[in-house]
Amino acid sequence: MAVYTDVAAEDLGSFLAGYDIGELLSYKGIAEGVENSNFLVHTGSGNFILTLYERRVAERDLPFFLALMEHLASRGITCPQPVKNRAGKVLGKLAGKPAAIVTFLDGLWIRRPTAAHCAALGEALARLHLAGADFPMRRDNALSVAGWRSLYDGCRERAHKVERNIESLVAAELDALERDWPRGLPQGVIHADLFPDNVFFLGDKLSGLIDFYFACTDTLMYDVAICLNAWCFETDHSYNVTKGRALLASYAKTRPPSEKEWDKLPLLSRGAALRFLLTRLVDWLDVPPGALVRPKDPREYARKLRFHQKVKSVRDYGVSAP
Amino acid sequence: MAVYTDVAAEDLGSFLAGYDIGELLSYKGIAEGVENSNFLVHTGSGNFILTLYERRVAERDLPFFLALMEHLASRGITCPQPVKNRAGKVLGKLAGKPAAIVTFLDGLWIRRPTAAHCAALGEALARLHLAGADFPMRRDNALSVAGWRSLYDGCRERAHKVERNIESLVAAELDALERDWPRGLPQGVIHADLFPDNVFFLGDKLSGLIDFYFACTDTLMYDVAICLNAWCFETDHSYNVTKGRALLASYAKTRPPSEKEWDKLPLLSRGAALRFLLTRLVDWLDVPPGALVRPKDPREYARKLRFHQKVKSVRDYGVSAP
Repeated sequence: MAVYTDVAAEDLGSFLAGYDIGELLSYKGIAEGVENSNFLVHTGSGNFILTLYERRVAERDLPFFLALMEHLASRGITCPQPVKNRAGKVLGKLAGKPAAIVTFLDGLWIRRPTAAHCAALGEALARLHLAGADFPMRRDNALSVAGWRSLYDGCRERAHKVERNIESLVAAELDALERDWPRGLPQGVIHADLFPDNVFFLGDKLSGLIDFYFACTDTLMYDVAICLNAWCFETDHSYNVTKGRALLASYAKTRPPSEKEWDKLPLLSRGAALRFLLTRLVDWLDVPPGALVRPKDPREYARKLRFHQKVKSVRDYGVSAP
Repeated sequence: MAVYTDVAAEDLGSFLAGYDIGELLSYKGIAEGVENSNFLVHTGSGNFILTLYERRVAERDLPFFLALMEHLASRGITCPQPVKNRAGKVLGKLAGKPAAIVTFLDGLWIRRPTAAHCAALGEALARLHLAGADFPMRRDNALSVAGWRSLYDGCRERAHKVERNIESLVAAELDALERDWPRGLPQGVIHADLFPDNVFFLGDKLSGLIDFYFACTDTLMYDVAICLNAWCFETDHSYNVTKGRALLASYAKTRPPSEKEWDKLPLLSRGAALRFLLTRLVDWLDVPPGALVRPKDPREYARKLRFHQKVKSVRDYGVSAP
């Protein structure tokens, strides 16, 4: 939950005067998202989301994120749409921060996803990958294998405070993944953070995807591995094969992975687990005094990593041989 | 900012099935309020606020607060309206907490109030006092003079961590106020927390009052003193006589205080300053590890208290002799 920057009504009023979205009627800071400050804004023409981009999001990346949302929407993906101001721009400045207005999406995120939700997610992820195929911009994934060692170096000495021996788990895994990380698999736009809180449902139907601020150009199957980690484990961190099968089968129906992609899923899943283990470790150890964000438990991803290390083939995830 | 309790979409959906307000379309935790968890809920019939009452609000007081909002609205005060469920009740249970749905009010709260805003506030406060005159329920003010010493006892030994000598300021003031606190002034329903973030404006017009969860039965002029403290000091904590005059003159036009009420305003203002100084001291010293609330600075109210101690008569606040 996060509102890092307070916005005065007086300043927001002036900011919105540059847009054609009617008079400001109300706005509330939203306790969602951990990277940016978000406000739900009600104007004469409806509901919008105002995002102030905080320091963890690089300003040079904002055009990529905003253009991607426009591109995906034009290809039929339901996601927030950046609103242009009267000068035709989607990016402005408010309270000293880069700021954008996007359209508001109805929908609820599911705290306890069922296999049916996982199936819907699988299809949406595949459609996202297909829709991104002709997106012309490129952004490297700073949180893929090349970025992990420096994260680890920053928290190695204090990692034992989180869990005994967690540093040896990470060190060995890092060596293995740096050596074996798959190259040459199909790449494209990936969401890279498609956790349940970024996927909206209305009734049983998936109604939209949000939060594209980790999106980048990377291995498509790595995005699947992130979702497998985020959606298909129970609260006791055990793998649920019914949910995994639902997600993967549904994804494959819309974008059938090659045999080589399937083969590498266990390795990619270890990488995805390590990525969230590392960023959570850093966040856990670096909570500043007075922080308004409660960091997530890194140990959840240590357990998931250990599960993936034991996976022999994609069959263990519940998928029949490709 | 606060959302203490997470609410699952699945659970909120079932809860709302007991109401006639349409299908749940979205909800977001709001980063506002420090006592309760608040969600902005969008349904087929519009926007609502869902409040989960956390432990700092006594469950036995909830009927008072909710009935008061209904009463005030029936007397023409714009404030949130509790929504009845199909069983005719305004109070239910969600995520293990008492919960209510109230109507959503458009409007913005002003970060930097001008004298015109203070004048509008003064009139609204007087109208609130008049509208509350025939409200039949009663709730004692636990945060008035009788409650201050126990607050002080709980933080006295650590108070010097906040400011050197603050404990002697408080101790002397407490003795004086317990001795001299005015009795017998006109009483009635007071809001008791009418800070700028609880007062909405649309354009120049005051459009509504919110957050009645400190409301109680107490000296009306004490409510004026709370507002004087909350609205009429600058960010450097100096008193702004133009704003004070605007607030008080405007209040007096709608509900003219007696000479005795005016006479006691300086003493009541010292009490109001001490009340917020004490609760802020407690909050400041008792922030639990992992808290998601940033406590407000108690020293602001120590400065205000010292100002009021030097006030000779209500003339120093900018009011001509009553």
